[in-house]
Amino acid sequence: MYNLLKGKKGIIFGALDSKSIAWKVAERSHEEGAKFVLTNAPVAMRLGTINELAEKTGSEIIPADATSMLDLENLVDKAMEILGGKIDFVLHSIGMSVNVRRGNHYTHQDYNFTKTGWDVSAVSFHKVMSVLYQRNAMNEWGSIVALTYMAAQRVFPDYNDMADNKAYLESIARSFGYFFGRDHKVRVNTISQSPTPTTAGSGVKGFDGFIAYAENMSPLGNATALECADYTISLFSDLTKKVTLQNLFHDGGFSNMGVSNAIMDEIMKNETSNETVEESKKKDKK
Amino acid sequence: MYNLLKGKKGIIFGALDSKSIAWKVAERSHEEGAKFVLTNAPVAMRLGTINELAEKTGSEIIPADATSMLDLENLVDKAMEILGGKIDFVLHSIGMSVNVRRGNHYTHQDYNFTKTGWDVSAVSFHKVMSVLYQRNAMNEWGSIVALTYMAAQRVFPDYNDMADNKAYLESIARSFGYFFGRDHKVRVNTISQSPTPTTAGSGVKGFDGFIAYAENMSPLGNATALECADYTISLFSDLTKKVTLQNLFHDGGFSNMGVSNAIMDEIMKNETSNETVEESKKKDKK
Amino acid sequence: MYNLLKGKKGIIFGALDSKSIAWKVAERSHEEGAKFVLTNAPVAMRLGTINELAEKTGSEIIPADATSMLDLENLVDKAMEILGGKIDFVLHSIGMSVNVRRGNHYTHQDYNFTKTGWDVSAVSFHKVMSVLYQRNAMNEWGSIVALTYMAAQRVFPDYNDMADNKAYLESIARSFGYFFGRDHKVRVNTISQSPTPTTAGSGVKGFDGFIAYAENMSPLGNATALECADYTISLFSDLTKKVTLQNLFHDGGFSNMGVSNAIMDEIMKNETSNETVEESKKKDKK
Amino acid sequence: MYNLLKGKKGIIFGALDSKSIAWKVAERSHEEGAKFVLTNAPVAMRLGTINELAEKTGSEIIPADATSMLDLENLVDKAMEILGGKIDFVLHSIGMSVNVRRGNHYTHQDYNFTKTGWDVSAVSFHKVMSVLYQRNAMNEWGSIVALTYMAAQRVFPDYNDMADNKAYLESIARSFGYFFGRDHKVRVNTISQSPTPTTAGSGVKGFDGFIAYAENMSPLGNATALECADYTISLFSDLTKKVTLQNLFHDGGFSNMGVSNAIMDEIMKNETSNETVEESKKKDKK
Repeated sequence: MYNLLKGKKGIIFGALDSKSIAWKVAERSHEEGAKFVLTNAPVAMRLGTINELAEKTGSEIIPADATSMLDLENLVDKAMEILGGKIDFVLHSIGMSVNVRRGNHYTHQDYNFTKTGWDVSAVSFHKVMSVLYQRNAMNEWGSIVALTYMAAQRVFPDYNDMADNKAYLESIARSFGYFFGRDHKVRVNTISQSPTPTTAGSGVKGFDGFIAYAENMSPLGNATALECADYTISLFSDLTKKVTLQNLFHDGGFSNMGVSNAIMDEIMKNETSNETVEESKKKDKK
Repeated sequence: MYNLLKGKKGIIFGALDSKSIAWKVAERSHEEGAKFVLTNAPVAMRLGTINELAEKTGSEIIPADATSMLDLENLVDKAMEILGGKIDFVLHSIGMSVNVRRGNHYTHQDYNFTKTGWDVSAVSFHKVMSVLYQRNAMNEWGSIVALTYMAAQRVFPDYNDMADNKAYLESIARSFGYFFGRDHKVRVNTISQSPTPTTAGSGVKGFDGFIAYAENMSPLGNATALECADYTISLFSDLTKKVTLQNLFHDGGFSNMGVSNAIMDEIMKNETSNETVEESKKKDKK
Repeated sequence: MYNLLKGKKGIIFGALDSKSIAWKVAERSHEEGAKFVLTNAPVAMRLGTINELAEKTGSEIIPADATSMLDLENLVDKAMEILGGKIDFVLHSIGMSVNVRRGNHYTHQDYNFTKTGWDVSAVSFHKVMSVLYQRNAMNEWGSIVALTYMAAQRVFPDYNDMADNKAYLESIARSFGYFFGRDHKVRVNTISQSPTPTTAGSGVKGFDGFIAYAENMSPLGNATALECADYTISLFSDLTKKVTLQNLFHDGGFSNMGVSNAIMDEIMKNETSNETVEESKKKDKK
Repeated sequence: MYNLLKGKKGIIFGALDSKSIAWKVAERSHEEGAKFVLTNAPVAMRLGTINELAEKTGSEIIPADATSMLDLENLVDKAMEILGGKIDFVLHSIGMSVNVRRGNHYTHQDYNFTKTGWDVSAVSFHKVMSVLYQRNAMNEWGSIVALTYMAAQRVFPDYNDMADNKAYLESIARSFGYFFGRDHKVRVNTISQSPTPTTAGSGVKGFDGFIAYAENMSPLGNATALECADYTISLFSDLTKKVTLQNLFHDGGFSNMGVSNAIMDEIMKNETSNETVEESKKKDKK
C-alpha cells in the first residue's frame, strides 16, 4: 500500500497456514513491494499450506530445518541467488515445546524435550544470524525480527518451558544484535505479541480463556496477526533504522497494565457471588 | 530479635497509627536495637496516635511538614542532637493525593491539587535528602528507604495521580542516590510494597477488591505491613551495603506475574457463566 | 515519500528551529501527506524561526503556553476548525529545567524552579491530553507521542531534575494512555531518543562529550533528529495501531548496552596510561 | 553474628575455593547459625579446596553433577538425612561456558558447547528445583537463590553465551518460583552481582579492565564476594519472606547508571587527547 519495502529482499521463516503471523507478514511484505523467499521445516510444510502463499506472493520456498547449520547455509545461499543479492530483512517465527505437546508439567519436564524445544525455539535464531553474519549476507541497515511472548518477563503458568525459551531468544537478539549492528549496521529486535489464535498457539491449554483475559486487560484489546504484520513491516522499513536490541511489546497495552477496570469488574462479580479468596485458592492447588 | 540495628540512629517519617507500615518499622527497629526519632506532619499527628508509639519505643517526636525546608532542617538538627550523632537510616513513608480525596478522575484533575500531591508525596523525598546531604548528616553506609507502589510502572486505574507521583519519587531515589552514594557512601532505595490495608491506603476506591485480586495473583499472597517492616530492617542493616538506586518489589511475587491459575479460574467461571467479553467491556465504559 | 499520513490531521508542539526534532517531524509529516498546526509558547516563537517552517509546510501557527488550560483549549478548538475535523496525531516535544539554566546542582535545587520545570516539561503533557480527551477531539486510532530521555530510568548526573520530570512524563503516558485507549481507541507512547544536538539539548553541561560517549556505546551510533522524525511517523501511521503505553527506545541500541568494545578500549587506554581508578575517583569528587 | 539462620538447614552449590561467592555464603551461613551440606561437581572438587571449607564449617560434602537428576536426587536425599529434616535454603552458584573456555567468538559458536554450557549453567537450576519440589524437600517459607549477572539484560560483549544462559536461568527462577511459591510457600530469587574476581570469573577476557570500569561506574563501587554473601544471608533469613520471582541487583548501583562523572572524566580525557571517535571506532572493528 505504501511501497515501504520496495526493492527490499527478505527471508521469512514460519508461515504454516493462513492463520500464521509469518503468513500475514509475507502477504504484507508482498503488498509493500518486497521480494522474499519462504522457508519452513519439511514437516511443517507437509502439515500446512505454504505452497498457496508462495503462489500468491510469487515467492519460492526453500525447505530448511532451522536447527541445521547445513540447511541454513543452503537456505541463505539459495535465497541470495534467487533474490539476486544480499538480504534486507528476516523474520524468525519459530517456536515449539515438546513438553507442552506431551502434556508434561513445567515442574516435571523431560529434559530431552526441553533441549529440543530450546534448540528449535531459541538457538535456531542464533544459527540463522550466525549464517547470515559469517556469509556477510545482510545489506547495511537490514532488519532482523523474531517473534516472542511476554512470558519471557512474567509468569503465565501454562506457557511452560516456552517462557524460558523466549527469554533465551530475546537475549540472543541483544547479544547478537550488538555484533551485527557494530559490524554490519544491521538491527535486531523482537516483537512481543499479544496471544494470537494461530494454529501453533492453540496447542496451549486454556488458550481461549487466556485470550479473553488479555483482551479485557488491554486498553486497545489484543493485537491481531495482521496488525502484527503491519508492525513488522514498520520494523523492516527505513523508518526505524536506529531501533535495535529492543524487545517491542505489540499488545494493545497489556504489558504495562497492572489491572484494568474490566478485569476488576469480573473479579468483583465473583467476590460478591459469595466465594472467598481462600476457597478459590484451595481449589487452585488441587 | 537479631540486634541488626544495634547502635544505629534513625529518622522515621509517616507513622500515623498502628496500621501504618512506618509504625511497624519503628517497632521492629526498636526491637533490633536502634534509636530513632519519629516525625509526622502536625495535622497527621492530631489524626493519629503517634504518641503511643513514641512511648512504646522510647522515642521523641519532632513534628515537621515534609514540604517545608525549614521544618526539615529543624528536624535533622534536633534528631542529631537527641540521638547524639549522625543518622544511619531514614524511612520516608509519605503520600497523599488531593485529587483522590476530592474524587477527581485522573483525566480531569485540579492541577493545584496535582501540585500539592506531587509536593507532599514526591518532592518531600528530595527535600529530606537535600537537608541530610547539605548538613552532612548521614553516616557512611547509611541507608535511606522510601515506600512506593507498582503503579509507578504499570496502570492501576484508581491509583490516579499517585501513580505519577510514585514514578517521580522513584526517579528521585536514583538521581539523588547517585550523589549520596558517590559522596557519602549512603544508599538510597525504594520498596514497592503490596497493596496494604493501612488507614491511608483505604482511601482508594475499590481497595478491598483490589487487595483480594493482588492476593490471588501473587504466588505467596500479599505482603503485610509487618513483613514490609522486616524487609525494611534488612535494608537498614549492614547486610545490604551495596544495594542502591534500586526499586525493590516486596509483593509476594505479584510484579512478575502475567496471570495466576487462581485468577484464570475466576475469569473462566465468568466466561462460562455466559457473559461475553464484549458485554463486559461495554459496561466497563459506562 | 510513502503517503503514510495521507488525510491525517495533527498538532505539533515544540518546533523551535531547524535543529528541533519537532521541526523534522513537521517536515516529514508534510512529506507523508498530513495536515497539521504548529504550536509553541510565545517566548519560544520569538527565539526561534517557526514561521519559516509554517510557510514551508503550509501550516498555521497557534501560539499556546502548554501550562495554560485556556491556551490549550483555544489551541485544540482552533486546530479542529483549521484542519476541518478531529485530530489524528499529536507530538509533545516540550522540556525545560530552570534549575539547569540557573546552574543549580541537583542536590541543591530551588524548588520554585523545580515546580516550573515539572509543570512545563511533564504536567503540560497531561494538560494537552486532558483537553483533547474532554473535548473528544481525537479520532479513533489516533496516536499521541511525547519525546523523552533515558534519564527517566538511569542516572545521567548532569541531566538534573529533567530526569525526574521525564519519569513523571512517562508515567502520564501510561496513566492517561489507559483511559484514552479504553474510551477512544487512541494510543499514547513516548520515544526515548538518543542525546540529540538540538538548541535545547545544548544547554546541558558537557553535552558534546556525552554525545560522543553515547555514539561509542551504541552499536548503530546515535539516532539523529531526522531519524527520530522517521520513527515518529511510523508511530503516527496505521502500522502501529496496537502499540500503546510503551516507552520506545530510539537510540542505536544504547539502552540495552552494558558496555561496548569501543568504550572498553577507551577505558583500557587510560588504565595503561598509569592513572589508578582511585586517583580518578578522588578527582571526581572535587 | 546475628543468629539470622539459627536452626535453618541448607544446601550450597559451587564453593570452589576461598574466592568463591558460595564459599563466603557458606562461611557466613555458618556464622549465622545454619547447618548445611556442601556440594560441587567431582571435577570442581578436585580443582578446588572445598574440604577445607567443610572442615571449617563442620559440613559434609556430597559430590553431585548438577546436570544429573540421579546425582541431584541422591544429594537431596542425603542432605535431608544428614541435616535431619527438610531444607530451608539453597544457593545455586554454578556457571560455565565451554565456548568461552575454548575462545569461540559469540557469533561463531560450537553448538555442542553451547548446549553443555546451557545445561550446566541454567538447566541445572531447574533440575535442582525439580528434585526439591517433587520430593517435597523444602520447608515452608524456604528460600532458593541463584547467582546471575546483568549480561542477562544488557550487552557485555565478552560475556559470550553466558549472557543467554543467565537470561534462561533468571526465567527459570520466575517460572519455577510461581509453582514453588503457590504450592509450598518457597521463594525463588536471583542475585545479579557485580563482576567479582573469583577463580571462575577470571576466565573472561579483559576481566580486570572491566572490573575497574564497573567500579568507576557504580556510586558505591563494586560489591565484593563477602558483601554478596551478606546479601544472600538476608534473602535466606525470615526478613524477606514475601520477596519472590525477583532478580535483585547487588552491584553498588551499576545497574541503574547511565553514566557516572568518573567515567565521563575518563572519556573526556581521551577526547581531548586528540583521537576522534571515528578513529577509535575503526580500530574497534579490526
